[in-house]
Amino acid sequence: MRILIVGGVAAGASAAAKARRVNEEAEIIVFEKGGYVSFANCGLPYYVGGDVEKLDDLLLVTPELFRERFNIDVRTGHEVVGIDADKKCVTVRHEGRETTESYDRLILAAGAEPVRPGIPGIELEGVHTVACIEDVEGISAALDAGVEHAAVVGGGFIGLEIAEALLKRGVKTTLIEQLPRLLANFDPELSKPLERHLKRLGLKLMLKKGVSEILGDGRVSSLRLSDGSELPAQMVIMAAGMRPRLELARRAGMELGSFGGVVVDEEMRTSVPDIYAAGDMAQSVNFVTGKAGRSPLAGPANRQGRTAGANAAGGSLRCRGAQGTAIVRVGELTAARTGLGEAEAEAAGLDFFVSYAPVRNHAAFYRGAQYIILKLIVENDSGRLLGAQAVGREGTDKRIDVLATAIYAGLTVFDLESLDLAYAPPFSSARDPVIMAGMIAANAVKGEIRLVTAGQLRELAKGGKCTVVDVRREDEFICDSVGGAVNIPLDRLRRRYEELDRGRRIILLCAEGYRAYVASRFLSQKGFDTAILSGGYRVYTMDV
Amino acid sequence: MRILIVGGVAAGASAAAKARRVNEEAEIIVFEKGGYVSFANCGLPYYVGGDVEKLDDLLLVTPELFRERFNIDVRTGHEVVGIDADKKCVTVRHEGRETTESYDRLILAAGAEPVRPGIPGIELEGVHTVACIEDVEGISAALDAGVEHAAVVGGGFIGLEIAEALLKRGVKTTLIEQLPRLLANFDPELSKPLERHLKRLGLKLMLKKGVSEILGDGRVSSLRLSDGSELPAQMVIMAAGMRPRLELARRAGMELGSFGGVVVDEEMRTSVPDIYAAGDMAQSVNFVTGKAGRSPLAGPANRQGRTAGANAAGGSLRCRGAQGTAIVRVGELTAARTGLGEAEAEAAGLDFFVSYAPVRNHAAFYRGAQYIILKLIVENDSGRLLGAQAVGREGTDKRIDVLATAIYAGLTVFDLESLDLAYAPPFSSARDPVIMAGMIAANAVKGEIRLVTAGQLRELAKGGKCTVVDVRREDEFICDSVGGAVNIPLDRLRRRYEELDRGRRIILLCAEGYRAYVASRFLSQKGFDTAILSGGYRVYTMDV
Repeated sequence: MRILIVGGVAAGASAAAKARRVNEEAEIIVFEKGGYVSFANCGLPYYVGGDVEKLDDLLLVTPELFRERFNIDVRTGHEVVGIDADKKCVTVRHEGRETTESYDRLILAAGAEPVRPGIPGIELEGVHTVACIEDVEGISAALDAGVEHAAVVGGGFIGLEIAEALLKRGVKTTLIEQLPRLLANFDPELSKPLERHLKRLGLKLMLKKGVSEILGDGRVSSLRLSDGSELPAQMVIMAAGMRPRLELARRAGMELGSFGGVVVDEEMRTSVPDIYAAGDMAQSVNFVTGKAGRSPLAGPANRQGRTAGANAAGGSLRCRGAQGTAIVRVGELTAARTGLGEAEAEAAGLDFFVSYAPVRNHAAFYRGAQYIILKLIVENDSGRLLGAQAVGREGTDKRIDVLATAIYAGLTVFDLESLDLAYAPPFSSARDPVIMAGMIAANAVKGEIRLVTAGQLRELAKGGKCTVVDVRREDEFICDSVGGAVNIPLDRLRRRYEELDRGRRIILLCAEGYRAYVASRFLSQKGFDTAILSGGYRVYTMDV
Repeated sequence: MRILIVGGVAAGASAAAKARRVNEEAEIIVFEKGGYVSFANCGLPYYVGGDVEKLDDLLLVTPELFRERFNIDVRTGHEVVGIDADKKCVTVRHEGRETTESYDRLILAAGAEPVRPGIPGIELEGVHTVACIEDVEGISAALDAGVEHAAVVGGGFIGLEIAEALLKRGVKTTLIEQLPRLLANFDPELSKPLERHLKRLGLKLMLKKGVSEILGDGRVSSLRLSDGSELPAQMVIMAAGMRPRLELARRAGMELGSFGGVVVDEEMRTSVPDIYAAGDMAQSVNFVTGKAGRSPLAGPANRQGRTAGANAAGGSLRCRGAQGTAIVRVGELTAARTGLGEAEAEAAGLDFFVSYAPVRNHAAFYRGAQYIILKLIVENDSGRLLGAQAVGREGTDKRIDVLATAIYAGLTVFDLESLDLAYAPPFSSARDPVIMAGMIAANAVKGEIRLVTAGQLRELAKGGKCTVVDVRREDEFICDSVGGAVNIPLDRLRRRYEELDRGRRIILLCAEGYRAYVASRFLSQKGFDTAILSGGYRVYTMDV
């Protein structure tokens, strides 16, 4: 059995090692176009920032180790340029010469490459991407030589991570993003606190701007933006997204999906016999919707690679798909998501509501407690958890991982209420943020409370059919509140509730939602039609 | 409707607040024997250690707030001393006088009290417990006045937490535990790293010792231990466990369970009509076995209290039970557990195996990565996760919470392999520790590998029927290994495997299990009968 693997990074390297463990007798050859295999892409920005000490640390398995330990033939600098699926062979280009290699099984794991938009000056020296070892070697060497101003183009994960790394290196950094906000794959309100935090770290943020030209004489010296302004920059990092490498698959007549990847089944088989695909170039099934999607991240790539390797080598393994779990840290802030976002839930035609819980990451009385804002996307009636997003500091990753597990298992918000999570004051509260978020959403599903978001509140206020009552203390209210709100502190509500108009819906708000909840339970038992601003003023301002 | 609640701390306070939210019209009275209600028990040791700044921070809700906000009548210093279930009234003692109060619904949430063993000298000044606000006020005042030596009796959660607090306060501290190890509610091997770490923090640890006498003239000055030795101590903290307060329930003829608590149903009803019980004095159902248990911790107490409060007030809420999730931090080390331990799984008659995964808490290449040792207890054949225990530093709590959620949802180790958890280098690895642990255990369930524990290895070695092969590099092997092991480094195994005797079982070991796994897959395909020392030398020595 001869197994050829195209690409030797995350999915390809996983596939190769797994194939060997399943089949000691197979001949396994990995062709990697670049100079390195099995390196940690996700670590690249951190090498620039100094959190990864040596480039070698990013090389997880070397070609030598592949040969010694696994008896796998790894050929770097070898590009597979053609597939003949009928003859079961590939054309390989190396140092200008082409050879043909036959296969019994072929695994495509060519990954993705950074988008390099066709703007004038893109070829100038000093314009970088962050996709491989050579890229960050180049960036690091340039920084060592001295860079005063840098521009990062793109406000996704890699853009934010590399921008932070540049700031840590003392470079005056501007981040340019075409959209009106950062992190387009998060729900919009999550971007706010990250933007504020990045500015505090010294980043110059230019939203709703594009780059129209990169200027310089041989080397980049400045950027011309879409608004005509010019920005000094001796370094430009293009972080405008990654595009899966699909040429080979396309030319081999493989079925491609609408999410921009090769269509595969649970065993990672493509539409062409004996050819498997895995990693950034493959699609996957979204756990939550059960429909096709694409999750071009390291975790799914490893799982898909392992699955492809096992099956290609004669074993049997299935990959259930992914659910869009992702996380990014910027300075002290973490933003994370899992499952469906609001827009995705809408696109999937699901009937859902949104519930926020701003909750301390551990016991409030224990030093250093900080807020995490948790957002749940919950199916109406059933209470099934469809998605979750979070922004906060320490412990944000934990809550998203717990919620990711809950979504995987198809749990409802009633289940979240019942979870038995680990509590000691340094780690959590007697009611963990996840449990608290579950309780709030469960109350909403049961109809004990009605939740509105800031957007819904604005709509309702426009209609003029509601009274907004801020039940915080007077000293909290006078600092700031939602426009048009009247103040009746919770602890005086029993004495003053008759002031309210029973003919109008009462929208209650407080700092985080708890006092509004108590007020809502009281007023609804007194015959009022009430709702709660979910997450209170803290979520309204996304103050975390 | 008149609802009386006996006890106003975790379960009682939760019950009161929830009852009010469900029923605005009910009269709700809370009787608390002590001077404070709704305080954070779990924070008490941290006040002594300085991680909680002010005692006030531990008072979550005051009687005044209960009255103002919830219209709840909280009476501290009021002890309920009798129940007449036929007449539906209780006898309350306050400042020496007894009165009778009638109820429609009664909620018992009297909690537990510290065990004070009847050893001579227990009444001396300077002997403390850690169960209420007054206790830590006393400890703190004594420390302020100057304590050179202190002794902590009991190596459970509170014992460890208060011992660490005393060390932080500069007190020479000895911990005395009757058992041969700390943390009896964890599997035995988990205690080792904690004991080592505590010694490094300066704790003097005396295991397998009891206290036979507390000596002193009015004030404690020393302890006589069971081995006859004497230990200087100006302060003694009794942390020898908590006993549920069951006198009232017993006298009222309530059914008590074999786990030392009041028997309740999912709605927290006791065997006596209109009487509910919640918190440390109540039993609960163990999620995993479906049988009765008792989980006297803050999380379950809050859930039970909330459930009792809702149902007593005319609402409808169920409490599914608990699964023994618990966590403790000592210095930098965290130990946590969820689900069943080995002994519990055996007692429940389950057919299971044990699988270890020593895995870095985040990407190895990212600065500061540290080991977590994860232990899974897995049902044979089905692969269902029955329990998990872990010891490590940062991120240990996260993995136990994910595993707790998985156990709650009835997931298998095949599910763990498929989880889509959040990965970026500061938080995790492309294969999170939980996923890695799942993969290892899944391989074992599928029969692709066979795992043995250190204990099983010793048994097999005694029988003389196996060869232990250490596949680490020579320089690792010569430092230390398992007695009787021979060294064939993995990367030379393909050349040297014929040296091995096919008639004997080959037990493979390496640093953490991965190289042994690769070796095992190779050798088993070559016809050898192999097994792997689960978790390798790191778990063998519990080096974390």
